[in-house]
Amino acid sequence: MAQHQITIKDIAKMLGISASTVSRALKDHPDISPKTKRMVQAFASKVNYRPNALALNLRRSKTNTIGVIIPELVHHFFSSVISGIEKVAYAAGYNVMICQSNEDYNREVIDAQALLDNRVDGILMSLSKTTLQFDHIQNLIDHGVPVVFFDRAPEEIDADKVFIDDFMGAKIATHHLIATGCRNILHLSAPTHLLIGQRRRDGYIKALEENGIPYNPDFVIKCDTRDDVFANAGKILQMANQIDGIFAVNDSTAIAAMQVLMKNDIRIPEHISVIGFGDGPNATIAYPPLSTVEQKGTEIGKEAIQLLLNQIENKDESYNTTTKIITPVLRIRESTMM
Amino acid sequence: MAQHQITIKDIAKMLGISASTVSRALKDHPDISPKTKRMVQAFASKVNYRPNALALNLRRSKTNTIGVIIPELVHHFFSSVISGIEKVAYAAGYNVMICQSNEDYNREVIDAQALLDNRVDGILMSLSKTTLQFDHIQNLIDHGVPVVFFDRAPEEIDADKVFIDDFMGAKIATHHLIATGCRNILHLSAPTHLLIGQRRRDGYIKALEENGIPYNPDFVIKCDTRDDVFANAGKILQMANQIDGIFAVNDSTAIAAMQVLMKNDIRIPEHISVIGFGDGPNATIAYPPLSTVEQKGTEIGKEAIQLLLNQIENKDESYNTTTKIITPVLRIRESTMM
Repeated sequence: MAQHQITIKDIAKMLGISASTVSRALKDHPDISPKTKRMVQAFASKVNYRPNALALNLRRSKTNTIGVIIPELVHHFFSSVISGIEKVAYAAGYNVMICQSNEDYNREVIDAQALLDNRVDGILMSLSKTTLQFDHIQNLIDHGVPVVFFDRAPEEIDADKVFIDDFMGAKIATHHLIATGCRNILHLSAPTHLLIGQRRRDGYIKALEENGIPYNPDFVIKCDTRDDVFANAGKILQMANQIDGIFAVNDSTAIAAMQVLMKNDIRIPEHISVIGFGDGPNATIAYPPLSTVEQKGTEIGKEAIQLLLNQIENKDESYNTTTKIITPVLRIRESTMM
Repeated sequence: MAQHQITIKDIAKMLGISASTVSRALKDHPDISPKTKRMVQAFASKVNYRPNALALNLRRSKTNTIGVIIPELVHHFFSSVISGIEKVAYAAGYNVMICQSNEDYNREVIDAQALLDNRVDGILMSLSKTTLQFDHIQNLIDHGVPVVFFDRAPEEIDADKVFIDDFMGAKIATHHLIATGCRNILHLSAPTHLLIGQRRRDGYIKALEENGIPYNPDFVIKCDTRDDVFANAGKILQMANQIDGIFAVNDSTAIAAMQVLMKNDIRIPEHISVIGFGDGPNATIAYPPLSTVEQKGTEIGKEAIQLLLNQIENKDESYNTTTKIITPVLRIRESTMM
């Protein structure tokens, strides 16, 4: 809220003394008489004058509101993170306000400024895919607003961060396929310039290695959306009789692949086992219900808000940032062999 | 944010005159000399003194932020409403902050107060299922905050409201089943104490009537969640050879019913056609992809924010409240006969 802030010049004018006298009186400078100091300090307090230190205190006055900036509400993962955040925040007496960046850097900058203007006590955020500069985040930190990142965090900023272990999740999923008899496993992957794409592919390769199965680069197709699956349907069907398992980088890709295969009379899991990554409600709605890796959104949210509350409530102490890695778990359903 | 507000008494003390002189000077009272008025008014302005009228003006000063209170983010319907809201709000230069009531009246009250404290320019809301009192809403209106409801609105409050036409949606869905050859249609319904339960059942009955099909109350089962379907699986399977169609009150119920039927070798749509209501992403993920009624969340969001912006931007004029009813549309996929 924009309002005129009383300045040292205003006080000087109102009291009929020089600005430097006011400034030194406020700093308790020895050159200024006790009487003048008392007058200036009393007046400054009366008119709500706020020098930087006082502004900082004001900022430290609590609104009991936490701001959250997420890329997209529509993803089940983010809504489960929010439910974890809310559970802990509400119990601790905080309210939660959510802004959506819609994967848009400019919107994320506006959201951060709006939350700062609203004097939230702290901010939890997951970066938009288009965010490559971090001035808006540095600005929050410079204003003394505690920030904790989850899922997508900038390497450039020293802050608390909470992640899911994508490498481990992919390894667990691929191990499960191998344990249930698969040897020729197709990986439908995200682009490897995205960290999750890289880490999930690496987990897949590691599991093959650990089981003595040679890695075949032809068995990795860049295909990480429902539309990608339909675009690659011919290719996937052509490979269908060379493979006995599919590990997809996310559930919606896995489900679309099952639909393409079943349309062509390939049975899941009798002919090909399929496993995804995510475990949103789609996984149980799919036919057959999808085996997958649970991303533990609620737990990520709880860890992130806990780190934020620690910062808010111990603000004056020096603080070492923490990174927490949450291990995902396997959810076995009917799309893989038992 | 709690901070000391300058009062008339403070000004009186600082200027060494009486509080009543200050008060009358601020009101431009004829008993007060022009010189005193100028001094008091200049000083009051300098120290940011805000009488009620000024406080009201301050409330009217724009933050360019819209608050949204919704029951649950995780529902696709609500996230699509939000995307409609954001599209229009962003284009008009407004930011959007979202609070989730989690279907909890107390949380909704806190959310409303938090948005009021944050001086949002207006609020869009859909009531929680547990909200039976409306003082918190009246409080917003009394503070001059424009409020528009979507989907779930209190009859007790005179405000702009945007709804989907549930009756029409159900009628369209049932007509489609009849047009594709169904005569014995099971309706999996929501409780009729909920408006959507009542309206969707009435639309189903109306469609039967319009086609000369007698309404059989045994063909309406209270069953509106995935878990309900599994609990009623025996009953549904027992009825399976008397029926040729199912109209479910929402998509997840329809999808669970398909899963139960298919597990028992009943083919969809050859033996039984199934249609839902909602058209979230589950509908396309289902196998077979689900015919359903599109709830037009994005359009509802756009209409609601448009009504809110009209109020915000014409605040001083007298205003007649509006109710908009959006007609849903049929989405035909593979769970019904072509």
